[in-house]
Amino acid sequence: MSREVAFIAALRAIATSPAARGLADDAAVLEIGGARLVLTMDAIVEGVHFLPDDPPQDVAWKLVATNVSDLAAKGARPLGALLTYPLASDPAWDAAFLEGLGDACATFAIALLGGDTVRQPEHSARSFSLVALGEATGPVPSRSGARPGDHLWVSAPIGDAGLGLSVLRGEQRAKERSRMALVGRYRRPTPDVALGIALAPLVSAMMDVSDGLLIDASRLGVASDLGVVIDLALVPLSQAFAATLGDELNARLFAAGAGDDYCLLLAAPPSSKPMLKAAAAGVGVTLYRVGRVMAGRGLTLLYQGEAVPLPAKLGYEH
Amino acid sequence: MSREVAFIAALRAIATSPAARGLADDAAVLEIGGARLVLTMDAIVEGVHFLPDDPPQDVAWKLVATNVSDLAAKGARPLGALLTYPLASDPAWDAAFLEGLGDACATFAIALLGGDTVRQPEHSARSFSLVALGEATGPVPSRSGARPGDHLWVSAPIGDAGLGLSVLRGEQRAKERSRMALVGRYRRPTPDVALGIALAPLVSAMMDVSDGLLIDASRLGVASDLGVVIDLALVPLSQAFAATLGDELNARLFAAGAGDDYCLLLAAPPSSKPMLKAAAAGVGVTLYRVGRVMAGRGLTLLYQGEAVPLPAKLGYEH
Repeated sequence: MSREVAFIAALRAIATSPAARGLADDAAVLEIGGARLVLTMDAIVEGVHFLPDDPPQDVAWKLVATNVSDLAAKGARPLGALLTYPLASDPAWDAAFLEGLGDACATFAIALLGGDTVRQPEHSARSFSLVALGEATGPVPSRSGARPGDHLWVSAPIGDAGLGLSVLRGEQRAKERSRMALVGRYRRPTPDVALGIALAPLVSAMMDVSDGLLIDASRLGVASDLGVVIDLALVPLSQAFAATLGDELNARLFAAGAGDDYCLLLAAPPSSKPMLKAAAAGVGVTLYRVGRVMAGRGLTLLYQGEAVPLPAKLGYEH
Repeated sequence: MSREVAFIAALRAIATSPAARGLADDAAVLEIGGARLVLTMDAIVEGVHFLPDDPPQDVAWKLVATNVSDLAAKGARPLGALLTYPLASDPAWDAAFLEGLGDACATFAIALLGGDTVRQPEHSARSFSLVALGEATGPVPSRSGARPGDHLWVSAPIGDAGLGLSVLRGEQRAKERSRMALVGRYRRPTPDVALGIALAPLVSAMMDVSDGLLIDASRLGVASDLGVVIDLALVPLSQAFAATLGDELNARLFAAGAGDDYCLLLAAPPSSKPMLKAAAAGVGVTLYRVGRVMAGRGLTLLYQGEAVPLPAKLGYEH
């Protein structure tokens, strides 16, 4: 059991309110005054979640987008955010961060409500924390509601952001046009709130893909106490991805094990397919079926009808 | 203009929602459904807000208490909290922190709803962030509502926590009994939610004293566009404080310039005195009048009928 898992297990003894959803979901859901409030908090740390030389505009964008992604996965419309901000030693960095923050708040229609500015000691990794709250007007899907036989769907090509990070690190080379697309997906994720709201009433379970399709699908399976099958041949790849890394098994394993996609992963009965497709088309999005949920437990990978051994690493573990 | 003030001024251009209260208050106030939600976020950083060898139980307590203090100042009942937690390299530290977190959540009746655990690079100062949300059933006092002629009141003896910190740092010596009381006020502040709720309908303005009475009273004056007079002879001192530092002018200036009191500071018309006293007595608390609000601007200090020059430092500035 990792340190994080052990710590969260201990936290659960304190977080006994039903609104906390056992700390097993992407967000808390609090009923107040007839409204259903959805709350999520994500932090990013320099040197862990972003690189010291990442553009500050993109750091701010990503901080907002990762939180909005959790709201989208719960079918919640963003209302507001609060920010913990460590002042930089460089005022130009602060100004650039604010530019990205303003962009992101405007794009996702989320109001900055407050927060706290803090000083951090010199040479300390800077840590940014954001809380986003949203309102759901319908049911708030959990990770744990999947049922045997459900199909699994994702809402965007997988692996672009992870490949973008590899390109930035110099581990992969890409042609300029692909490079821009991939790096853009890494630096400026675009969670789709309208899609989350449209799908929420139709799904058995929903979450966002943030740490990698394989690890996040596993988590959905564990939360639902079921097994999950991913058919790697069905995992959608973008043109930029395929042009850079190809579309064979190894490329697909890379895509499904890379993080930062910030699209939706959902489970729904096969009979819901027409409604899902129509709801997604209504907001201009294509859904891709990538597998299914079944009785049992664990993650199974298929490729062209054959079982594929699980890679050592299913995604990003904190 | 300090770096923090400049940054917050720039943030205001983004935080245009009325719920943000111009980032000039202790908390955001969001109307949702039929409820009035109060939101606050405070962060603490190792080496800045707490010392590396502070007991982890007390670090957790203080993180919760400082946020609850903001809710109390807005007359809001605590509902829930979300936490950003950097895992320690020492699991015993994590366990001790959880113990204090559980204590504080139980004491202040606040539900832990979620959050994020993060890894920080080695040798980095650890940064904890907490968001607390509460519900107000009546009006939510701001800092900016004071009127000329209002009396200023505080809800507890001032300066104990600041003196406790000085004792811990070895700058002051105290007899054992006083030492325990003073250090206790520093490490385990006890904001009074019931008091805040009882006073909220009666005040023109209210906030908590967190950075020091003088600086916080100044902020109330600036927010209300009025001047503030503090009569240092009226500033209440505890027995432990007076036994350690005396009760003459210098001791009173120390008390009023020290931070971490986490009591309430409120402005109300003189005619409200009987109601204020009765409301406070109803929850077992004594209020102390420490000054008044008047036309004009700036902070004026009095002691035994004489004006006292302002000290160079009015309190803790972030």
